[in-house]
Amino acid sequence: MTCRYAARMEKTPRSFIREILRVTESPEIISFAGGLPNPALIRVEEIATAARSVFESGGAAALQYATTEGYLPLREFIADRYRQRLGLEVGPEEILITSGSQQALDLIGKVVLDPGDAVAIERPGYLGAIQALSLYEPHFSPVPLEEDGPDLAALERVLEERDVRLFYGVPNSQNPTGITWSQEKREGVASLLEGTDTLFVEDDAYGELRFAGRPLPPVKTYLPDSTILTGSFSKIAAPGLRVGWICADPAVLERLVVAKQASDLHTSTLDQRILARYLLDTDLDAHVREICRVYGRHSALMAALIDDLFPDGVVRTDPDGGMFLWVTLPPDLSSMTLFERALAERVAILPGLPFYVDGGGERTVRLNFSNADEERITEGMHRLARAIGV
Amino acid sequence: MTCRYAARMEKTPRSFIREILRVTESPEIISFAGGLPNPALIRVEEIATAARSVFESGGAAALQYATTEGYLPLREFIADRYRQRLGLEVGPEEILITSGSQQALDLIGKVVLDPGDAVAIERPGYLGAIQALSLYEPHFSPVPLEEDGPDLAALERVLEERDVRLFYGVPNSQNPTGITWSQEKREGVASLLEGTDTLFVEDDAYGELRFAGRPLPPVKTYLPDSTILTGSFSKIAAPGLRVGWICADPAVLERLVVAKQASDLHTSTLDQRILARYLLDTDLDAHVREICRVYGRHSALMAALIDDLFPDGVVRTDPDGGMFLWVTLPPDLSSMTLFERALAERVAILPGLPFYVDGGGERTVRLNFSNADEERITEGMHRLARAIGV
Repeated sequence: MTCRYAARMEKTPRSFIREILRVTESPEIISFAGGLPNPALIRVEEIATAARSVFESGGAAALQYATTEGYLPLREFIADRYRQRLGLEVGPEEILITSGSQQALDLIGKVVLDPGDAVAIERPGYLGAIQALSLYEPHFSPVPLEEDGPDLAALERVLEERDVRLFYGVPNSQNPTGITWSQEKREGVASLLEGTDTLFVEDDAYGELRFAGRPLPPVKTYLPDSTILTGSFSKIAAPGLRVGWICADPAVLERLVVAKQASDLHTSTLDQRILARYLLDTDLDAHVREICRVYGRHSALMAALIDDLFPDGVVRTDPDGGMFLWVTLPPDLSSMTLFERALAERVAILPGLPFYVDGGGERTVRLNFSNADEERITEGMHRLARAIGV
Repeated sequence: MTCRYAARMEKTPRSFIREILRVTESPEIISFAGGLPNPALIRVEEIATAARSVFESGGAAALQYATTEGYLPLREFIADRYRQRLGLEVGPEEILITSGSQQALDLIGKVVLDPGDAVAIERPGYLGAIQALSLYEPHFSPVPLEEDGPDLAALERVLEERDVRLFYGVPNSQNPTGITWSQEKREGVASLLEGTDTLFVEDDAYGELRFAGRPLPPVKTYLPDSTILTGSFSKIAAPGLRVGWICADPAVLERLVVAKQASDLHTSTLDQRILARYLLDTDLDAHVREICRVYGRHSALMAALIDDLFPDGVVRTDPDGGMFLWVTLPPDLSSMTLFERALAERVAILPGLPFYVDGGGERTVRLNFSNADEERITEGMHRLARAIGV
């Protein structure tokens, strides 16, 4: 038989990253294409100890069905950390545990978006959000990203032109660019959205990975009721556990809980309990400081190698956190061409095209600096310089 | 602000079970309302051993991002077991690991259903499927369930009247009724769907829990290309791990993988590896036989107590597997009234109304016999008899 698929499947971008990652799985290829944390920075021993403790102190409950909202001690940990780190006053009743922060995006789309609804998104914007939200068939309105955050005048125009259901952004160390929004942009976005019906979806996957400068308050501080804040343990604990969360107004959260229940009942009981045990027993602040030290070194090394080895006309961002550097190539070089040439040199990069909802970005490249160690970063950047043809 | 929600949220039935389970959480209430496996039948020690082994033999990989399709040894285990148990020739490339079989339903809806598309479903039908699929705004066409499966004449009429996108059914020990489709019904459904564009979604959550009679071939045997078969480890291993799967034609599976990636990237790496280790090391057949022995005893006990204690005019099903008994009350007693009276006697039941997509079922009740032990089943059924007012 030939199967007829839903219309929404036609609007989902084919996963370019998926295809690329498949090509670059070979160990002889140095990959800057993915977005994996550094494996040496996952505390396997401590997480194994937490797992043993969970099995010893209530294994049956850890293997049984549980509530959709999530494991209360984990939700309390998240709320406490918001208070301590960011002065954000939220309670566990405002936290829903999700199966990674990717699911947070899916649930938000499910609960909020009707086909054709306008979604404003940074240009370039996070591909995972574009994929998740595309399945709800929105109209994407891109808002250009400047050096310190979204172009406020462009956002204002988008808000005037359309009834924007939500604006999605990554204010800390954005994926793909590594840009962090300034204080002025944060307040500016909040002030533009204040009193409107537009939700702000604040994806804070990288907020803890800030290796330069001081942390800035989340936009939710200035726009508390209509900001849906999402977070993830993938970058500060372990991505394989697939645990993220949504922090939102209880009325909105109630709808998200209904959607979550229909989508997968609840997130793994075992993973939530292991993670809660690990987080309560470890010195998370010290661990996060170590991650930041390492990623800061990696980022500086990669940036220095770009400046030393790449030709004039290559422009790069200067991340103060996160996992990515964003490079714009000279006018005569497309990122797809470079991708092919780089692969011949056994180094993988991610062309920036799929981060643009309206096309463009042909000369942009995302480089991941978290996964490889310094030796492989150095070798990989030399290979990449050869591919550029210096 | 007041948040405007997507139209699909209006069509999602409020989760009646959710509300009921909240009321019945108190340990002094004996609950037949939920659908939990018996905790004594979860092999906590063996799963803990599997977890230790996973951490010792590759903990970093078990905590890292992984492929959307799922862990290959687990997919191979599932394919092998289909071959051995049911003679179903499928390979691992036809298996997608999902975050519980609830997610399988969500992904199928996402990939296949446009708003207004017709979905045929057993009447009464599984509430989790009604909830998951409702979010894709289908038109539900109920097909009455007879003692040995769906009313084939009714299914034929539904197929003639509408362009049915999919027919969803639970041929083994159906939820909520406990009914198993006969060989004749299986072949009959396959023959009606053969050559049409209608997919059959065969939910086989309970196939291994057959405590009487011999296992019958899945409908997929007779309708291989257009049957999407779903399964779950929740009933034979542990529900808290949230691991289920979809077995489908590779072309359909490819679309489901795209939807899965957008929905939660992949299912917990750690849970998949622990489960695979456990399944490969344990004697699963012996464990399944034990579950069947216990649930068979529970079912027979509950059935005997209904026959002994309940008034004339109460009708019940006679399950040969699964976790549920289905009761129809006498004409003068509604299940909502009985629910209230039962709660006053500290026993919880699940009124059958939410299993009917078109209303009705006011005198039906689902009783779970897997979770409580025999002593509590006996005490609970006496309480329930008092509530009925015998």
